[in-house]
Amino acid sequence: MLVLSNDEVGQLLTMQDCMDSLEKMYLDYAHDKALLTRRMDNLSPNSTPDAYYAFKHMGGTWPAEGIQALRLNSDVITHPVMEGKVRRVKQPLANGRWVGLVMLFSTETGQLLAMFPDGVMQHIRVGAANGIALKHLAREDATTLALIGSGWQAETQLMAALAVRDFKEVRVYSPRKESREKFVAEVKPMYTSTNIQVADTAEECVAGADVIMSSTSAMVPVIQPEWVKPGMHISCIKTYEMSPEVIKKCDVVFIHTQAQGKHLDNIMPGTPNVFNESKHKEWVNDKVNGILRFPDIKKLVAGQKPGRQHPEQVTCFVNNIGMGLQFAAAGAVVYKKALEAGIGVKLEDDWFSEDVHP
Amino acid sequence: MLVLSNDEVGQLLTMQDCMDSLEKMYLDYAHDKALLTRRMDNLSPNSTPDAYYAFKHMGGTWPAEGIQALRLNSDVITHPVMEGKVRRVKQPLANGRWVGLVMLFSTETGQLLAMFPDGVMQHIRVGAANGIALKHLAREDATTLALIGSGWQAETQLMAALAVRDFKEVRVYSPRKESREKFVAEVKPMYTSTNIQVADTAEECVAGADVIMSSTSAMVPVIQPEWVKPGMHISCIKTYEMSPEVIKKCDVVFIHTQAQGKHLDNIMPGTPNVFNESKHKEWVNDKVNGILRFPDIKKLVAGQKPGRQHPEQVTCFVNNIGMGLQFAAAGAVVYKKALEAGIGVKLEDDWFSEDVHP
Repeated sequence: MLVLSNDEVGQLLTMQDCMDSLEKMYLDYAHDKALLTRRMDNLSPNSTPDAYYAFKHMGGTWPAEGIQALRLNSDVITHPVMEGKVRRVKQPLANGRWVGLVMLFSTETGQLLAMFPDGVMQHIRVGAANGIALKHLAREDATTLALIGSGWQAETQLMAALAVRDFKEVRVYSPRKESREKFVAEVKPMYTSTNIQVADTAEECVAGADVIMSSTSAMVPVIQPEWVKPGMHISCIKTYEMSPEVIKKCDVVFIHTQAQGKHLDNIMPGTPNVFNESKHKEWVNDKVNGILRFPDIKKLVAGQKPGRQHPEQVTCFVNNIGMGLQFAAAGAVVYKKALEAGIGVKLEDDWFSEDVHP
Repeated sequence: MLVLSNDEVGQLLTMQDCMDSLEKMYLDYAHDKALLTRRMDNLSPNSTPDAYYAFKHMGGTWPAEGIQALRLNSDVITHPVMEGKVRRVKQPLANGRWVGLVMLFSTETGQLLAMFPDGVMQHIRVGAANGIALKHLAREDATTLALIGSGWQAETQLMAALAVRDFKEVRVYSPRKESREKFVAEVKPMYTSTNIQVADTAEECVAGADVIMSSTSAMVPVIQPEWVKPGMHISCIKTYEMSPEVIKKCDVVFIHTQAQGKHLDNIMPGTPNVFNESKHKEWVNDKVNGILRFPDIKKLVAGQKPGRQHPEQVTCFVNNIGMGLQFAAAGAVVYKKALEAGIGVKLEDDWFSEDVHP
């Protein structure tokens, strides 16, 4: 059983590799050759005031690569209000650290192949999904990118966008000045052929942009309807960040997946402060005549639903919720490359298997 | 992070400890103070002929003990027909071993506390659940036990039964002569104050018994309606083993849990041979006026539903399906005792946590 670190995952998993593997997986998934292990959350009280314990897991079976993935998070969560907006903050209480893990199993033998923290892969796979959508939906001649948000997820959004389009100009806005400046200072040296600038207002950030990508931890709409102009592509990493008013101005809308949802939440009575997330009305799940209005990205990748038809259309990708299958796709790459490169700590297989029939 | 072996789990977890902890958990669960992480199965094809890959997980949050448990099984499954009955056999393909794991997390800090194989705990918790039901439902003066089955689960059924009633005589029947004789030869020296005998027919086994416990891997009814006599307590470890005809002769029936079920199966199209299990009509889930007919064992433990009212009644416990919360209850005991005794292999906590926000 191979143990890898976040650094090793980051070293092994390029954005391009991740997007390639995700595309193959979405294609298989569109043809019923990949199987989701649906997300399930258990939310319960613990002794931290105004916090709750959240155990989340999701996974997926991808027989083409012989991989079953399980990603799990064991978190103590709070919902502080910052700048008037409710946020979702995971408290690092495990000796100052967070607990998120990916486990990879062989669908051929059952064996536990690898375990590693989820943080780096989590960011890359979110970026990769939005990058794949951008590749299929944005105008080929898009040159200006507006990035809203400068937190954990923003960097991989930028990385993915630059991997699929030749952006000349990137503008970054987030509410906290020091945060957006720090972010731009960090990414500027990594992408020297692109002009990456701080925008001091959201309006300045989006003015004239061909693509708007929102990647924030906000739980209220971030993208404003008046920002939407003909020919744009817009995307977000959470449903909250976009509103039905924005969607009404879009001609082509894809979401990440209809299969996930909040319906597998198990909430213990008496759990404090969970209402913000679990009772939030997810407009993305609205049905028209019993049919969900927005198709999955897998149908875009498989050509089962059309993407952009002409340059004036507004296209949109709502990365409404993650999917455990992404960890099977990204995990397959990382595991293969780790074995080839001899990277990771090898632990006793016998610790993670048994000679007693279970 | 503490790694324990099956042997260590067996050494630490007595049947009495396990029953005590399960009773506390069922009581909390009856009062909404324990939370199930529902079972979910992913079934898909792999390259073993007539087999399929099955990834199963279940868990539970038990704040009173600060434990979140996750139990997972990564199996290659076949359904051979043995002696005319379809069985469910897990193939040990991970270097000749099976893959079943229990993970324990802290609900206070999120930390991964321990990992160990599930085999020994799995047998003890099934026995413990049937033992608790027997304790609450069987006549106090029960002296004769008929045990049907001599496989993996039979030993812990016997262990649990002997922990809660003073059985003078135990008769063991299973279809294969060598199997029942081997079983009796093994358990006889462990319980010298009880007369444990092989029965060469099922009828001989159950004649005059106060309690019948079935613990087989059969997927067709094992207990026959004509065996049921006034004053008996009967139990099984799978719904399949009992039929509606048997249930009709019972006055008091409890099942393990209504909350679980097969509705969280994810089955990939083209998966061979899964129909036996997933399409099996589980009569135990039949509803009358929209209400499930049989209450959970937690209601028996909490006194929310009456058990046996008089000596002539026939009582019954159908351990219809396991519950991940049992691993939280049994796991809490094992983890605490392992720390006290300094047992297990301690692995780097940093391998199973991260400084990157997930």
